[in-house]
Amino acid sequence: MIKAVFFDLDDTLIDTTKLAEIARRKAIEGMIRAGMPVDFETAYQELLELINEYGSNFPYHFDYLLRRLDLPYEPKWVAAGVINYHNTKIAHLETVKGAKRTLLRLKEMGLKLGVITDGNPIKQWEKILRTEIDDYFDDVLISDFVGVKKPHRKIFEKGLNRFGVRPEEAVMVGDRLYSDIYGAKQVGMKTVWFKYGKYASAELEYLEYADFVIQSLEDVVGIIRGIESEEKARSDKEVHAD
Amino acid sequence: MIKAVFFDLDDTLIDTTKLAEIARRKAIEGMIRAGMPVDFETAYQELLELINEYGSNFPYHFDYLLRRLDLPYEPKWVAAGVINYHNTKIAHLETVKGAKRTLLRLKEMGLKLGVITDGNPIKQWEKILRTEIDDYFDDVLISDFVGVKKPHRKIFEKGLNRFGVRPEEAVMVGDRLYSDIYGAKQVGMKTVWFKYGKYASAELEYLEYADFVIQSLEDVVGIIRGIESEEKARSDKEVHAD
Repeated sequence: MIKAVFFDLDDTLIDTTKLAEIARRKAIEGMIRAGMPVDFETAYQELLELINEYGSNFPYHFDYLLRRLDLPYEPKWVAAGVINYHNTKIAHLETVKGAKRTLLRLKEMGLKLGVITDGNPIKQWEKILRTEIDDYFDDVLISDFVGVKKPHRKIFEKGLNRFGVRPEEAVMVGDRLYSDIYGAKQVGMKTVWFKYGKYASAELEYLEYADFVIQSLEDVVGIIRGIESEEKARSDKEVHAD
Repeated sequence: MIKAVFFDLDDTLIDTTKLAEIARRKAIEGMIRAGMPVDFETAYQELLELINEYGSNFPYHFDYLLRRLDLPYEPKWVAAGVINYHNTKIAHLETVKGAKRTLLRLKEMGLKLGVITDGNPIKQWEKILRTEIDDYFDDVLISDFVGVKKPHRKIFEKGLNRFGVRPEEAVMVGDRLYSDIYGAKQVGMKTVWFKYGKYASAELEYLEYADFVIQSLEDVVGIIRGIESEEKARSDKEVHAD
């Protein structure tokens, strides 16, 4: 019997990659509107390169962008970038298509739901609260808060312990073959790889750890029903065999 | 002849104090809604005390609030505080009553306009851009960018130099008797104290440095017209005296 389903957050429940791309474009547009003397493509490509090198949580993207473009430091341009980036992130933050419907169906089936995600706890909670999905979840585990990161088995074990369920009673759904799928499979959970977003064709060396592959989040419901009816059939058979 | 007018930003052009109060109240309300087990007044008073001790730019207000209230660290509550604080600040950021009309009148009179403000350059530019007053100004001097703070004479001298005007041709308008009025008077500028906001009855030992005291920002226009007609009358008289 499946008793619990855990979800990754970014690009599984929330459209983070798509959002970040729009927000970065809007930021560059805002900086140019504020007077930054450079064409859109040059600035945008430089920003992507910079984010690639320094990571998306680096707090000085726009400051460094000016340095890389050999422009003078002009706080007005940086402020324009920050404003447009944040406005966009707040206005466009959305759950993945079908996410809320899926969560509701799973709750109706009496399942415990959890989030297991990497990242900054405040930022991750911001996404959960802003998209108003917090009420669906019985627990939220964020790596930078619990002190262990996916794919380390401890974060998955913590999730199982909190719900008091055994690994084979739990499903992990995520977009990353390495951190979500390989990670959850290590502890014996059932795994559903959501082939979506920028990692849809990445880390394929870990594909063998995925029990199921889906391209629509709503397919999680059918998979869990399938697991349950299969288990039921098997146990019926065992009874008959006696 | 008056050729330039400089304005302070916070609580002179932009209603910062009022905004911060609303935002802090909304933050506490959001934290309680997210489950923080404490009554509004207790939490709000503790937050005010904390801000008073650590300053308003301290980045861990909500984290420290939980510690001070002997509550467990719950990132969900902190995130709820942060979201509500920012949503409010973005939605309610407004110019002081009459500010835009005043700036427009002064531009029509052919005056150069500048901002001389303390604070973080990005945050100050954010306020200027979000309230859309940037186009009124020929220059913006922010202390943490130019490296000198009000009331130091250098920041006022920089403003005068950028516009190429003499001190007696310039007016400084601000809500702080010490940093704005005493500061600008030191270099010989004309001073208009805007008796407004939380400093409306503070630093009165510097009142002698104020040439004018106003309670509505729009009075700046009349004051400058007054100075000009008085100077004109005086120079006419001097001509007659010849």
